[in-house]
Amino acid sequence: MIKIKQPTLLISKQKAIANIKRMLDKTEDISILRPHFKTHQSKLVGELFRDNGITKITVSSVSMAKYFADDGWNDITIAFPFNIHEINDVADLAENNNINLLVESVDTTEFLINNLNISIGIFIKIDTGYHRTGLAANDSSIEKIIQAIKGSKLRFMGFLTHAGHTYTAKGKNEILEIMNESKFILNQLKSSYVKEFPEIIISYGDTPSCSMAESFEGIDEIRPGNFIYYDVMQFHIGSCSFVDIAVAVACPIVALHPERDEIVIYGGGIHLSKEFIVADNDFRLFGYVVEIGDDGWSNPVPGAYVSSLSQEHGIIKVLPGTIGNYKIGEIIGILPIHSCMSANLLKNSTQLLTNS
Amino acid sequence: MIKIKQPTLLISKQKAIANIKRMLDKTEDISILRPHFKTHQSKLVGELFRDNGITKITVSSVSMAKYFADDGWNDITIAFPFNIHEINDVADLAENNNINLLVESVDTTEFLINNLNISIGIFIKIDTGYHRTGLAANDSSIEKIIQAIKGSKLRFMGFLTHAGHTYTAKGKNEILEIMNESKFILNQLKSSYVKEFPEIIISYGDTPSCSMAESFEGIDEIRPGNFIYYDVMQFHIGSCSFVDIAVAVACPIVALHPERDEIVIYGGGIHLSKEFIVADNDFRLFGYVVEIGDDGWSNPVPGAYVSSLSQEHGIIKVLPGTIGNYKIGEIIGILPIHSCMSANLLKNSTQLLTNS
Repeated sequence: MIKIKQPTLLISKQKAIANIKRMLDKTEDISILRPHFKTHQSKLVGELFRDNGITKITVSSVSMAKYFADDGWNDITIAFPFNIHEINDVADLAENNNINLLVESVDTTEFLINNLNISIGIFIKIDTGYHRTGLAANDSSIEKIIQAIKGSKLRFMGFLTHAGHTYTAKGKNEILEIMNESKFILNQLKSSYVKEFPEIIISYGDTPSCSMAESFEGIDEIRPGNFIYYDVMQFHIGSCSFVDIAVAVACPIVALHPERDEIVIYGGGIHLSKEFIVADNDFRLFGYVVEIGDDGWSNPVPGAYVSSLSQEHGIIKVLPGTIGNYKIGEIIGILPIHSCMSANLLKNSTQLLTNS
Repeated sequence: MIKIKQPTLLISKQKAIANIKRMLDKTEDISILRPHFKTHQSKLVGELFRDNGITKITVSSVSMAKYFADDGWNDITIAFPFNIHEINDVADLAENNNINLLVESVDTTEFLINNLNISIGIFIKIDTGYHRTGLAANDSSIEKIIQAIKGSKLRFMGFLTHAGHTYTAKGKNEILEIMNESKFILNQLKSSYVKEFPEIIISYGDTPSCSMAESFEGIDEIRPGNFIYYDVMQFHIGSCSFVDIAVAVACPIVALHPERDEIVIYGGGIHLSKEFIVADNDFRLFGYVVEIGDDGWSNPVPGAYVSSLSQEHGIIKVLPGTIGNYKIGEIIGILPIHSCMSANLLKNSTQLLTNS
C-alpha cells in the first residue's frame, strides 16, 4: 500500500514511459524531440527521457537550465524571452553547455551581443496566433534582429513558436489547423533565410497538437512538455485518455460531511494550484478523484470532484449515497487540472511508483 | 534601487509593522491575538510580531508548526482538521511546546486519545456558516467529543471557527453581521460547557472581519493572518487600502508589445499563483501594477493590470499611449491577488525592505 503523510505527487513510471514512447513512435528521427522539462522539473523523470534516447531538452527558466545542466543535460533551450538580468548566469551555463535563448526584440539581441563573450544559439520567437509573446511573421524587427546577429558571436538557430491557442481550440480539427497554420508561417520565414543560414530550423511546441498529430512532417523540432504526465485539462482538450494521466496527488481524508456529501482532504491550493476548469453546468472543477491501490490508481470515481480549494484544504463533492465508502485517514488521489502547476508545487513531495 | 534577477516578493517592513500595530490598537489585551502565520510562513516576518509582544501563533499544517517551533515559538495552534497520519510528528512537537489541535469528529478524537501519550489542547471546530469544515452548533458529535475528551490526556480548549464566508460578503455591514452571528453561536456553545470547563475560550478568525471590527468584545481569541500583508482581494473586500498592502512581487520586463498595449514580465503562475478576481466588466484580473522606487512602491498605475498568467510569463495590459513609459529590463511590481499564495510560492525569493 502507498504510504504518505502529507499531499504527495505520485508519478506512475509505466504511464510516463508509455507517454514518452507514444510520442517517439510518431517521430521518424528521435532528434526531432526536444521535450520541455518545465512540466516535471525532476531529474528522476529526466532519467526516463534519457533512457529513451533523448539528449536535448527545453526549459522555461535559467534556474531550471542550471538544475538540469547539473545533471548532465548539456543541450538546453531556455524557451522564455531572455531576461537581461540573468546574463551572467547564462554566460556561466554556456561555458560547458550548448545553450539556446529566445529573443523577440532588437534591444535584447543587442544587449546579448554587447554583453556575451561566448557563443550561444538564438531562436527568434514567432507569434503564430496565440498573442502571448513573439513577433508576427511580418514584423520588421525580425530582419533587424538577424542583421544584428550576423557578424556577432551569436548563432542564429531559426524560428520558434508556442501555439498555446491550441489549449482553447474546439476539438482535434481546429487544433490540427492551428498546427498547420503555424508550420506554414514558420516554414515561410525559414525559406527566406535558409540560403544564408543553412543550419536554421523551425521549432514547434505544445502538447495538444503534438499529441493529436499523426506525424511531424515539415517540422524540424517539437517541444511538448505536458505529455509526460498529461492532466484533466489535457483530457478535456482531447489530448489523452484518463489512463494516460501519469500523476495523481495523494491526499489524506481529514473530515467527512455526510450532510452535504462532502469530503475534506489535506490538499489545497498550495499543493494542487488554484487552476480549475469550468464544467458544463457552470461549476468550477479543481480535480477528479481516484482510488489509490497497491499498484497505482483507478479511473475517476463517477460524480466525484474537487469543488473548492483553500490554502491547505480541498473539498470533494461525491454522489449522494456514496460518502459511506470513505473514511477519515484514508488516502485518496486527485487527478490534477494542470500537472505542470501541481508538480511545481510538490517538487519536494513526490513518489515515483515503479510498479505502476 | 531595488536589485533583483528573478521574481521576488518584496516585503515592506514599515507597512507590515503598521498592519500589526493597527490590529493591536483595537485589542484591549494583546493576549487576544494569536495571528495566523500561514500567510507569511517566514521566521523573519515572525520577528516583527515578536517585537510587538506576540507570543502565541496559529499555523495551518504540522510542517509549519515545526518550522516555527524551531524558531522559538512554543505556543502553537494547528488550525486544520487533524490529519491522523501526522500523529508522531505532533507527539514530538508536543514534547517541548504547547500545541493545540482541531477536531471535528469523534473518530479523530478517539484516535488521538488512543495514540497520544502527551497532553495536548483540543479545539472543536465549529461551522458558523462557511460550510467548509466544522460541526454545526447543534451537531450531537460535539457532546460526544467532549465526553471522550473527559478523563483523557487531551485538554479541552474550547470552540473555534473560521468564518470564511466574510470573503464573499457584500460590504462591511454584512461582514460584521457574520462576525456577530459567529460570536453568538460560539458563545452559546461556550456557555453550555464553561461551568464544567472554566478555562475554555472561543477562537475566531479571518482578516476581513478582524480588519473591519472596531473592537473584539465578547471574543476570547482572534486569529487573522492575511492582515500582515493584505492584498488586492482584501482591498476589494474593503479590509484595507492600497497603501496598507505590504507586499509586491518585483518582476523584470522581458518583452513589450505596443501593438496590443501589452508588457510581458518574468513572473507567472508559479510566482503569483493563478488566483484572480473577476473585475466589473467580466475580465479576469491577476494583479495590479505598481512602480518600484528606492523606497518601496507606488499606488497602482491607473488602468494597468495583469491580464493572464502562464507558468513563467505574466501579461500586463496598460492604457493606450502609456507603453512608452516601460522598457525591457525594467523591474516593475505586482500587487498580488492573494498574498498567502504568492508568499508560499516565493518562500525562497523574498526581500524585506527595511526602508519602506
